Amino acid sequence: MPDMETRFTLAEIADHIGGVIEGDPTCQVTHIASLSEASAHAISFIAHARYCEQLANTQAAAIVISPLLADQYTGNKLLVDDPYWGFAKMTELFKPATTAKPQIHPTAVIDDHCQIGDGVSIGPHVTIGCNVELGDNVSIGAGCYIGDRTIVGNGCQLYPHVTLYHDTVLGKFGIIHAGVVIGADGFGFAPNADGWQKIHQLGAVTIGDNVELGAGTTIDRGALGNTVIGNGVKIDNQVQVAHNVHIGEHTAIAACSAIAGSTIIGAHCTIAGAVGIVGHLEITDHVHITAMTLVTKSIRRAGSYSSGVPMGPTKQWRRNAARFNQLDQIATRLRQHLQPGEE
Amino acid sequence: MPDMETRFTLAEIADHIGGVIEGDPTCQVTHIASLSEASAHAISFIAHARYCEQLANTQAAAIVISPLLADQYTGNKLLVDDPYWGFAKMTELFKPATTAKPQIHPTAVIDDHCQIGDGVSIGPHVTIGCNVELGDNVSIGAGCYIGDRTIVGNGCQLYPHVTLYHDTVLGKFGIIHAGVVIGADGFGFAPNADGWQKIHQLGAVTIGDNVELGAGTTIDRGALGNTVIGNGVKIDNQVQVAHNVHIGEHTAIAACSAIAGSTIIGAHCTIAGAVGIVGHLEITDHVHITAMTLVTKSIRRAGSYSSGVPMGPTKQWRRNAARFNQLDQIATRLRQHLQPGEE
Amino acid sequence: MPDMETRFTLAEIADHIGGVIEGDPTCQVTHIASLSEASAHAISFIAHARYCEQLANTQAAAIVISPLLADQYTGNKLLVDDPYWGFAKMTELFKPATTAKPQIHPTAVIDDHCQIGDGVSIGPHVTIGCNVELGDNVSIGAGCYIGDRTIVGNGCQLYPHVTLYHDTVLGKFGIIHAGVVIGADGFGFAPNADGWQKIHQLGAVTIGDNVELGAGTTIDRGALGNTVIGNGVKIDNQVQVAHNVHIGEHTAIAACSAIAGSTIIGAHCTIAGAVGIVGHLEITDHVHITAMTLVTKSIRRAGSYSSGVPMGPTKQWRRNAARFNQLDQIATRLRQHLQPGEE
Repeated sequence: MPDMETRFTLAEIADHIGGVIEGDPTCQVTHIASLSEASAHAISFIAHARYCEQLANTQAAAIVISPLLADQYTGNKLLVDDPYWGFAKMTELFKPATTAKPQIHPTAVIDDHCQIGDGVSIGPHVTIGCNVELGDNVSIGAGCYIGDRTIVGNGCQLYPHVTLYHDTVLGKFGIIHAGVVIGADGFGFAPNADGWQKIHQLGAVTIGDNVELGAGTTIDRGALGNTVIGNGVKIDNQVQVAHNVHIGEHTAIAACSAIAGSTIIGAHCTIAGAVGIVGHLEITDHVHITAMTLVTKSIRRAGSYSSGVPMGPTKQWRRNAARFNQLDQIATRLRQHLQPGEE
Repeated sequence: MPDMETRFTLAEIADHIGGVIEGDPTCQVTHIASLSEASAHAISFIAHARYCEQLANTQAAAIVISPLLADQYTGNKLLVDDPYWGFAKMTELFKPATTAKPQIHPTAVIDDHCQIGDGVSIGPHVTIGCNVELGDNVSIGAGCYIGDRTIVGNGCQLYPHVTLYHDTVLGKFGIIHAGVVIGADGFGFAPNADGWQKIHQLGAVTIGDNVELGAGTTIDRGALGNTVIGNGVKIDNQVQVAHNVHIGEHTAIAACSAIAGSTIIGAHCTIAGAVGIVGHLEITDHVHITAMTLVTKSIRRAGSYSSGVPMGPTKQWRRNAARFNQLDQIATRLRQHLQPGEE
Repeated sequence: MPDMETRFTLAEIADHIGGVIEGDPTCQVTHIASLSEASAHAISFIAHARYCEQLANTQAAAIVISPLLADQYTGNKLLVDDPYWGFAKMTELFKPATTAKPQIHPTAVIDDHCQIGDGVSIGPHVTIGCNVELGDNVSIGAGCYIGDRTIVGNGCQLYPHVTLYHDTVLGKFGIIHAGVVIGADGFGFAPNADGWQKIHQLGAVTIGDNVELGAGTTIDRGALGNTVIGNGVKIDNQVQVAHNVHIGEHTAIAACSAIAGSTIIGAHCTIAGAVGIVGHLEITDHVHITAMTLVTKSIRRAGSYSSGVPMGPTKQWRRNAARFNQLDQIATRLRQHLQPGEE
């Protein structure tokens, strides 16, 4: 959906992302596109040497490229050491300008005892409880709910229908997508004679600066202490973070992963989609977990971890899967056969 | 919850779904029920020959039945070639009439520059941004949010609390259940010195006609191009569709499945619940994927695919699962033993 | 987030949870904390004998402890048979008092034909359809939507942005967290010539007393009959319950689990997180299912069930996983070798 009114010269782009221009600094582009889809009004980028063959046929007006690959392309180019980062930085220029002027919509219901910073925008049908603090330039989307005593740091953007329960602390420059729920009760019950006695969740949620949370993600409040999300953490859609989890700085978690209660995750981890992590574990820094892995024990050493079995055609898979139930027996028989005296 | 005011004759039902009546066309029914639960006011249906033995005892006033099975039942019947389809079509008659008259509720906040078709209903506490287009007979449930420049096709029904971000295109006759979020940012970041540089998501979401999306499902906007959902696609609850995914026509996806970025899924696929599909794959038409499978490579051939291992009592399962970690060693030892000269 | 205004004596706590005081009944505490984190203003508890060594160093003002362990601690103590239950019960005292006075907010849109009990609180931007019944002391959070003819029992608390579709029945003392959707259409379609014919979902959802549903959970309405959740059921966040599922009393289901259509789950089951249960199964009472298990067949005997394979470093895991595809061949070769005449 490139907005055709947007228009930047290569020089303006270099001003924003840095780098060295080779070619025409006055050439104009209206949007970003991949090498193969770029028209003559687009700027493109090459993130990996394996795409070099696409350079010959791209129609792009200019390309963000590494100095190492620069001699492979004769057109207008902007040399940056990390073109993928350059692309990311460049998207800041091309994102659609928000139409929201900072205003507090008259339909918003805001308790009298709130502190509201400068340049705050509050959308229609918002509800804000008592003793809430909104920092400068905070934007609260339509229909959001912000519970009592919650603090939202400077520059946070809440998309519509976000729910922040009471006593949440949200750091600066957070981006919280639609439908996120922060601070709902953790899942805590003690068995009693005929069922379950609720453990009221007396802690809260504390979130650092520069955190992004995807649509529909839920982060529960702590039972006694807090659930804690570190600075720079990026969480995708429909992720579940249970009570008293701690997530270290700059860790990224892809969609539909679930982290059970009291687990501590280190910094700079990357957790792929649909991963499950059981409760009360510790995962050190710089751990990568592949998609749909179930983590059932603590991880003390950085590296990549996996579980699961490979996909196959159902018919073949079924034969192998049936053998799984015989695996212990197979191993035992094999050992007895190979080392008959040992068992 | 059959509404006792509803009442159709067998002739009226035949008018709606087609088929040939044998028996009394004036017999009246108030609701649909299964063979075993039907009272004398119900119409039932037989979808498979394996239920034939229930025909003897059913109390139903009439039955939708295949001509092939018709001689097994002596009561009032409506012969249709596909009785399960006949049942589905018949539910159109019995669904509760909506109480909503087409009206735009006075609490809705609607930007001045919107095009609103005939017969549109907009519920309380709705927010609609600028340059939105709503087709004829669109129904927008309470508390929905529709972002700038979004287009909603004729006859779409949005249940409460749906969020459509800016620039979404929704085709005709869509049914969008509560809590759906369309167009939130895809999960895109480039690593930088101390964390992550956001890749602003400049694409949008385009959805075809006759699409149904279940409660809590999220469909992210594209990074550069669009995320695209084809005509007739049916998606269940809490499904995650990442940025730049394409889903072919009439594909159905059950609850809690997750599709990672840029994956292309063909037409007429059926994806069971809790399936994970990693990014940048291609899946051809007419593929079936069984529940909780992780798809890690492209699928070029129609058919059914699976992963996972069978469930068992935890104690037995644990013994077999422990052997999984020895599987490569077991296979190697077996091969060495059987073909000692080969290794 | 202990509220420093809260203050109870040990005697007051004993009044609330029962038990026998040893030590100073007038000692005051302001909050609950774990043994290791307790300050001199906290009350703590010891749930298992394995924490006994922490008793020596805790700073807590008083401790809830089992009579069996009482001689291990010389400070102020409250003897209860089940200290973990005692802790749970004690949290009732320390939960923050709600600031909401029972009121019906003027922005709420409520149909004329509703029955509203005594002491009901309805938050801002709520929408309530026709013929809804709200019992006494019901609390409806900001932005909730309650569809036509829905019944909410005495003492239910709905957090913000809950959606109850038409004809839902919710028993007494339910706690429904933000973003829950009850009564959306089950996923039902019959194949037709070019795609799918919708099966309108004519049933509803019936929920018992004392049920808690976590944030973002979805419970679909039945196709013909109802989806039924028993008394005392506890469901965590982002759980999916499909149409016509029945869940027995006091069963607990952890986050991100998904239960497919028409499955019947017994009473007093405990289902861990990210479990998948396919449709049309029966699971008896007192079954435990471990995390991320896929249940593909009925379970007739109480006990614990699992599936999956253990996590390992990706490099090792990959070698073992590759062998999974040879498992049937390995088993066959082994059997041929060990019993050459048999095959």
